[in-house]
Amino acid sequence: MTPERVVAALRAAGETIATAESLTAGLLTAALTTVPGSSAVVRGGLVVYATDLKATLACVDPVLLAERGAVDPEVAVQLAAGARQRCGADIGVGLTGVAGPDPQDGVAPGTVHLALVGPRGTRHEVITAAGDREAVRAAAVAGALALIGADLGTLPG
Amino acid sequence: MTPERVVAALRAAGETIATAESLTAGLLTAALTTVPGSSAVVRGGLVVYATDLKATLACVDPVLLAERGAVDPEVAVQLAAGARQRCGADIGVGLTGVAGPDPQDGVAPGTVHLALVGPRGTRHEVITAAGDREAVRAAAVAGALALIGADLGTLPG
Repeated sequence: MTPERVVAALRAAGETIATAESLTAGLLTAALTTVPGSSAVVRGGLVVYATDLKATLACVDPVLLAERGAVDPEVAVQLAAGARQRCGADIGVGLTGVAGPDPQDGVAPGTVHLALVGPRGTRHEVITAAGDREAVRAAAVAGALALIGADLGTLPG
Repeated sequence: MTPERVVAALRAAGETIATAESLTAGLLTAALTTVPGSSAVVRGGLVVYATDLKATLACVDPVLLAERGAVDPEVAVQLAAGARQRCGADIGVGLTGVAGPDPQDGVAPGTVHLALVGPRGTRHEVITAAGDREAVRAAAVAGALALIGADLGTLPG
């Protein structure tokens, strides 16, 4: 799923999108906005690289963060919900994972949790990506674009 | 100035950084976090693609935005200050400009305002970049990295 197809599907659906990115730190939002005219559907995003910003900027429960660490499926879902709410978008997408080279909170590099919260409900996916930081982050962006495409693909027409 | 050198200079200075990006939509923060260990100095950022988010997320004066539009030197400075404050960083960087292909608020594509607010004061720069969206956004990121490097370069040692 290319950024062009995601932006076209959002425009067709008349829906807007926002992100909360940790390991990708803006790469997904930057990818979506490579497309001319993307400002009609991309609201913006939160780059919550430091763990405490996941709570203060993206409204993730600080108790959850303390108990489970930042790389967790429920944290990804709360990031998506926080992005949606804080940026006033129809769809929110959350990404959290370990780009490496070192493990984080006991989680191995390559582990990425993706989540989407929107009008059609909540989706979560976990991927295990091989390779270096750049490869893991690229896999996270590709996974998120596919997740958005799958959600929009359930629309009629 | 490469992301590696910026991250090394920030580590040497013991200072953290945060961003508020409009036209680059996360590219600068993504570039800084390509560097392993960047989490020691990169707090995060705000992707304020929609104009209203510049006010609601990054604390830019809404009257200023209404009067001058989003592509303005003072808006860039307020974005930098907002990023610094909202993300709890020592240094805030703001980017706003026109990636194209169309003009925005009467400003020609390629015009980019960069600003930095930090312990050594405020810097502002305007660049006029040639080329397509990708070229303009890449020039904006390069300009921001140079601006950060120039600010940190004034440190002794």
